[in-house]
Amino acid sequence: MPRTKGDHEARRRDVSEAVWRVLAAHGFGGLTLRAVAAELGATTGLLTHYFPAKRDLVAYALDLLDRRSASRPRRAGGEGLSAVRAAMLDVLPLTAEATDSNRIWVSSWDTALTDPALSDDYARKYAQSRDKLRDLIAAAQQLGELPAGDPARIAAGAQSFLLGLVVQALFAPEAFPPHRQTELLDDYLASLGSPSSSSSPSSSVG
Amino acid sequence: MPRTKGDHEARRRDVSEAVWRVLAAHGFGGLTLRAVAAELGATTGLLTHYFPAKRDLVAYALDLLDRRSASRPRRAGGEGLSAVRAAMLDVLPLTAEATDSNRIWVSSWDTALTDPALSDDYARKYAQSRDKLRDLIAAAQQLGELPAGDPARIAAGAQSFLLGLVVQALFAPEAFPPHRQTELLDDYLASLGSPSSSSSPSSSVG
Repeated sequence: MPRTKGDHEARRRDVSEAVWRVLAAHGFGGLTLRAVAAELGATTGLLTHYFPAKRDLVAYALDLLDRRSASRPRRAGGEGLSAVRAAMLDVLPLTAEATDSNRIWVSSWDTALTDPALSDDYARKYAQSRDKLRDLIAAAQQLGELPAGDPARIAAGAQSFLLGLVVQALFAPEAFPPHRQTELLDDYLASLGSPSSSSSPSSSVG
Repeated sequence: MPRTKGDHEARRRDVSEAVWRVLAAHGFGGLTLRAVAAELGATTGLLTHYFPAKRDLVAYALDLLDRRSASRPRRAGGEGLSAVRAAMLDVLPLTAEATDSNRIWVSSWDTALTDPALSDDYARKYAQSRDKLRDLIAAAQQLGELPAGDPARIAAGAQSFLLGLVVQALFAPEAFPPHRQTELLDDYLASLGSPSSSSSPSSSVG
């Protein structure tokens, strides 16, 4: 019987799942055809059909990480400061799924820093995340929920805080359980200051 | 002629240098006997004398990272808030040397997260860094340079900020040159608040 397109799609989904589980357990350092084959209950031979070289497997894994990150569920954040908070909560490892994907992100940094093209790509991704945060921060400023100040600069600080909290929580999940991460995030947001402690909000803009 | 202890020490230093250069350029993902041998201008055979297995090379590299981090030069920080600032500046990739060592730290996270014993070890290391920051923050509070508040909690936030700034600066050195990193750090320290905006400093303690 000829294989159908459905078979092919189902097989791709299985491969993606297996790659994801290997990454979550062993990181990019442990990503091998053999590990994925074992996870899939398939032969290494079958996998070389998908991934002729290790390089193809790594590229596939990076792409998978991108797609899963882009399609992950997001909190409905409302507007203003509450949208800033929701966007930041969306990043933190507060659930098992978010922990896996953060662990895979952190793991990918070694690979990404080694390859100049990939490193540029990551720099662009993080710049986009900062831009998104910047726009949310600017909106909160316009609502008078955050004091004035360069929103891009505030976003760079906020993203620093966020990435470092992810790293600490991955290494010490007992010291950084979800409620503790949320508490630290709220401390951070509070430290950005109430608009009353600054000049009047630029509510005339926008 | 028999080899002297001096020869042996010199050779160890050469090996350490070669391992360090491989890590700075290629990360733990690129750390192989072959790469170190090439960097050293030696045969892989000679290196198997030092590192019978890949595992031994990784263990050596992690230990080297530890020792170099422990012995790196530190700023004379004075006391109070200025000591907090100096300790945080000491971590940031503000020089080529600090960039190399941060790049190697970040690279080691993939390896460390994969191995439970190593992961615990990292969790302990980061807890120690937080404790050090906590003590400096508590001292700044007692001098009346920071508002009251749980110094351990403030330290957890500060370390998050610091680690995430390191990561962003490694990926985007043009967007985060030294003066920009310092600016963001100073923003962060300013956001911790002046003691006047809080209750009176607990200068009676200590």
